[in-house]
Amino acid sequence: MLEALKEQVLQANLELPRHGLVTFTWGNVSGIDRDSGLFVIKPSGVPYDQLKASDMVVVNLEGQVVEGELKPSSDTPTHRVLYREFTDIGGVVHTHSPGATSWAQAGRPLPAYGTTHADYFYGEIPVTRPMTQAEIDGDYELETGNVIVETFQQLDPAVVPGVLVHAHAPFVWGKDALDAVHHAVVLEECAKMAAAMLQLNPGAAPMAQQLLDRHYLRKHGINAYYGQGS
Amino acid sequence: MLEALKEQVLQANLELPRHGLVTFTWGNVSGIDRDSGLFVIKPSGVPYDQLKASDMVVVNLEGQVVEGELKPSSDTPTHRVLYREFTDIGGVVHTHSPGATSWAQAGRPLPAYGTTHADYFYGEIPVTRPMTQAEIDGDYELETGNVIVETFQQLDPAVVPGVLVHAHAPFVWGKDALDAVHHAVVLEECAKMAAAMLQLNPGAAPMAQQLLDRHYLRKHGINAYYGQGS
Amino acid sequence: MLEALKEQVLQANLELPRHGLVTFTWGNVSGIDRDSGLFVIKPSGVPYDQLKASDMVVVNLEGQVVEGELKPSSDTPTHRVLYREFTDIGGVVHTHSPGATSWAQAGRPLPAYGTTHADYFYGEIPVTRPMTQAEIDGDYELETGNVIVETFQQLDPAVVPGVLVHAHAPFVWGKDALDAVHHAVVLEECAKMAAAMLQLNPGAAPMAQQLLDRHYLRKHGINAYYGQGS
Amino acid sequence: MLEALKEQVLQANLELPRHGLVTFTWGNVSGIDRDSGLFVIKPSGVPYDQLKASDMVVVNLEGQVVEGELKPSSDTPTHRVLYREFTDIGGVVHTHSPGATSWAQAGRPLPAYGTTHADYFYGEIPVTRPMTQAEIDGDYELETGNVIVETFQQLDPAVVPGVLVHAHAPFVWGKDALDAVHHAVVLEECAKMAAAMLQLNPGAAPMAQQLLDRHYLRKHGINAYYGQGS
Repeated sequence: MLEALKEQVLQANLELPRHGLVTFTWGNVSGIDRDSGLFVIKPSGVPYDQLKASDMVVVNLEGQVVEGELKPSSDTPTHRVLYREFTDIGGVVHTHSPGATSWAQAGRPLPAYGTTHADYFYGEIPVTRPMTQAEIDGDYELETGNVIVETFQQLDPAVVPGVLVHAHAPFVWGKDALDAVHHAVVLEECAKMAAAMLQLNPGAAPMAQQLLDRHYLRKHGINAYYGQGS
Repeated sequence: MLEALKEQVLQANLELPRHGLVTFTWGNVSGIDRDSGLFVIKPSGVPYDQLKASDMVVVNLEGQVVEGELKPSSDTPTHRVLYREFTDIGGVVHTHSPGATSWAQAGRPLPAYGTTHADYFYGEIPVTRPMTQAEIDGDYELETGNVIVETFQQLDPAVVPGVLVHAHAPFVWGKDALDAVHHAVVLEECAKMAAAMLQLNPGAAPMAQQLLDRHYLRKHGINAYYGQGS
Repeated sequence: MLEALKEQVLQANLELPRHGLVTFTWGNVSGIDRDSGLFVIKPSGVPYDQLKASDMVVVNLEGQVVEGELKPSSDTPTHRVLYREFTDIGGVVHTHSPGATSWAQAGRPLPAYGTTHADYFYGEIPVTRPMTQAEIDGDYELETGNVIVETFQQLDPAVVPGVLVHAHAPFVWGKDALDAVHHAVVLEECAKMAAAMLQLNPGAAPMAQQLLDRHYLRKHGINAYYGQGS
Repeated sequence: MLEALKEQVLQANLELPRHGLVTFTWGNVSGIDRDSGLFVIKPSGVPYDQLKASDMVVVNLEGQVVEGELKPSSDTPTHRVLYREFTDIGGVVHTHSPGATSWAQAGRPLPAYGTTHADYFYGEIPVTRPMTQAEIDGDYELETGNVIVETFQQLDPAVVPGVLVHAHAPFVWGKDALDAVHHAVVLEECAKMAAAMLQLNPGAAPMAQQLLDRHYLRKHGINAYYGQGS
C-alpha cells in the first residue's frame, strides 16, 4: 500500500540528519496521497538509522491508522490538520532545528532580510500566538495544527511554506515530503543568518518589496527562469 | 566482574565524542549496579579512541577501587556523592560541552524556554552556588558533589536530571549511563538554543507552565504517549 | 572546446560544498579564457554531486551561449559584466555563504580588522548601494553586475577581490576560478571572525594601515616573500 | 638529521586541520632539539595534505636554514625569538583559529572564566600591545616575537603557554610540538566559550583565584593527580 510514497517519506526523513536538522528523533516527515486521502508518516521515537520504509505508518484524514504496526509520530494530529486545511500541500515536516527553534522560542516572526529567504518564502515567516491553557490541556497536537491554520488566515501557505510555533519549533511544508524538507533546510539557514545579521544591524528593516518579488518570482510561478525547467 | 555494565559504560563514554560533547579527555561517564552498590567509571585521562571495556574501573560507594588497574577519573568522588544521595539514578556524566559550560561560567541557571527543554527537563536547570575556599581547598571533587546535592534540596533530581556547576561545567544523570549521556546531549542543545534565543529576545520569560507540563508528561510518567512504549 | 577550463571550473564549483560555502545549489563559479573572450559557467540549478565537466556552459561576453545543452546559471549576466569591466580577473564566484551573507543583509561593509583579512583583501570589502526599483524590475542580474562595478569606481578590484551585494550575498573573484573560490573562503572566514570580534569590542577600529600594508604586501606584488614562489 | 623530531613536527602540523584550527595553510608548528639548538618547522605555504616529514626545514637559533630544500614558514623569526627567550619550551604553534583570533582582533586579553581554562592556563591569556610603525616596517616577524616576549616580562610562559598578538592571531607553545598544538586547541575552545559566556553575562568577573589554583595544580606540578602519571 502506497509503497512509493513510503519510500519517498523514508528518504525525506533520512534527509533530516543529513542536513543537521535533528538530534536523536526530534523530527518527523510525512507525505500525502491526495487521491486516496491517506498520508504516510514516520513512526514515533524510532531512530533514523533504524528506519525502514515498512515502518512507515499510513493514516487517514480522520486520524485513524490504516496500515502499520508501529504507532505514528505523536505529532500526527498536527500533520493531519495541515493536510486537511492546506489542500495544496503534499508533505509536512516538523523539526527542532536550532536556528529556527530559537526564533520560535523568542516568539519572533522571521522577516525576509535577504534574497536567500526570498528565493523560497514570499515574505515574513509568521510565529503563532501562544496556545491557550484549554488548547494545551485538550487535544494538544491537533490544536497545534489549528493555531497554525489560524495564523494563515490572511496568508497563503503556498507561498509561505512554514511557520514557527510559539515556544516550540517550526512546521514546514511543500509540494511533497522532499520539498517540505528542502524548505525546512532553507528556513534553518535563513533563521541562522538573520540572527547573525541582527547582531550587525539590530534595527535592520526587511528587504525591499521589489527585491523580494524579483527573487521569489524568478524561482516560482509562470515566469520562473531559475533551473533547467522548461 | 560487572562485564555488561563495563561494556555499557564504555559505549556511553564513546557517545561523548560522537555527539561532539568532548574535546580531548574532557568528560567521563559512569554507571552503577545498585544491587552490589558498585559503580563503573572511565579511567582518568585516557583518550576515547584507546578506551576498552577492560580499562573501566570499579569503585564502591565508599570511594575505594574494587577492580581495575588504572586510576579512576579524578571526578570519581563527585559521581560517588551523586549515586549515594540521588538513590534513583543509574548513570552520571560530566563534560565541558561548550554550550552548557558557557552557562555554567556565566553563573546563570538555564530556564525552560521551549518544548525541546520541556521534553526532558521539568523546569529550570539550576546552577550551583560558587564553592567556598574551604570546599575548594578541601576534598574538592567530593565537595563538588555536595554542592550539587545542596542545590537539589528543594528539587527532584529525577525530573531535572542535570546541573550547572558554577564556573565549571555540567553534571548530568539518568536511569543508566546511556540515558545520562542522552540528557547531556539535550542539555547542550538547549543551552545553545537558549543563548541564541536571548540574542533575539533578551527579556524572554520562561515558557508557560502548562506547556512545560504537557511536553514533560507526554514523554514521562504513567500517561506518557510518545514513542513505541506500551 | 575549452576542455581544460571546463575541468577547472568544475573543480572550483566542487570546492564550494567542500568548504561549506553552499547549501543545495546556492552558488556558482565561472572562469574565463581571455584569448577567446569566452567564459565557462555552472549550469543553473544542477546539484554539485551530479555535476560533470561536460555540463559546463560556454558563454561569450555578449551573453550568448556558445556551447552547452543546459541553461547557464541565472547569475550569468552578473559574471559577464564583471569579466567585461574588470579586465584582469579570470574567475568569478557567487555564493550565499552564511557569514558573508549576514554582512550583506546588514548592509555593512566588512572592514579589515586583522591580518587574516589583510593577507588577501587590501582594505575594507565594500557593500553595494541598494538597487533601485528600475534596476530590480529591469535586467536584474546584469544590473547587479553594474552596481558592483559602480561600487569599484574608486577601488581596484585586483586588490579587493570581492563585494557584498546589498540584501543579497557576496560576489568574489580572482585570477582564475580556483583563486576566486579561495578568496570566497577567506571572505567567509573573515566575515565570521569580524562578527564574533564585534561582540567583544563593538566600537573596534579597523587595523592599522601599516599592518594592513605589511601583510598584504608580504603575499602580493614584487616583494612578496610568503610561500615557495621565486 | 633530527628525523624523529621532523616526524613529530609533521604530526603536530597535521593535528591542526584535524582539530579545525586552520583554513588553507594558515598555521605552522615547530619543535626544537635543545641539545643541538636546532628547530624544525613547516615550510611556507605548503598545503597540509601534501606535507611530508622530509619537507620540514631545520633552522638554527640565528635563523639560518641548516637543512631543507623548501623555504621555512614566513613566521620562522617569531618562533626563533620564542625559543631563544622562553628557554623551557619545546614547541611553538601559530594559527588563525577563529575563536582566538577574534579576541586578538578585539585587542582583549582572555580572562580565566572557568575550569576548562584553569586546567591548562594559569590565569589570563594576555594580548600584546599594538606593534609600532617601526616594528611593522622593520624585521616584522622577529619584532612580533619581541613584542610577545615583552608581554611576558612579568609573566611565566611555562604556566601561561600562549598569547594573542594584537590584530593578528594566537601564538601558543608547550613542552614539545604536540603539546603546543594541544594548548592551541584548548585556547580555541576557551576563546569560543568565553565569548558565548559574555553574551549571557556581559559583566562577568574572572573565576575565583582558589578555583583557578585548584584546577591548574591538579594537572600540573609536583602534586598533580589527574591522569595515569605516577
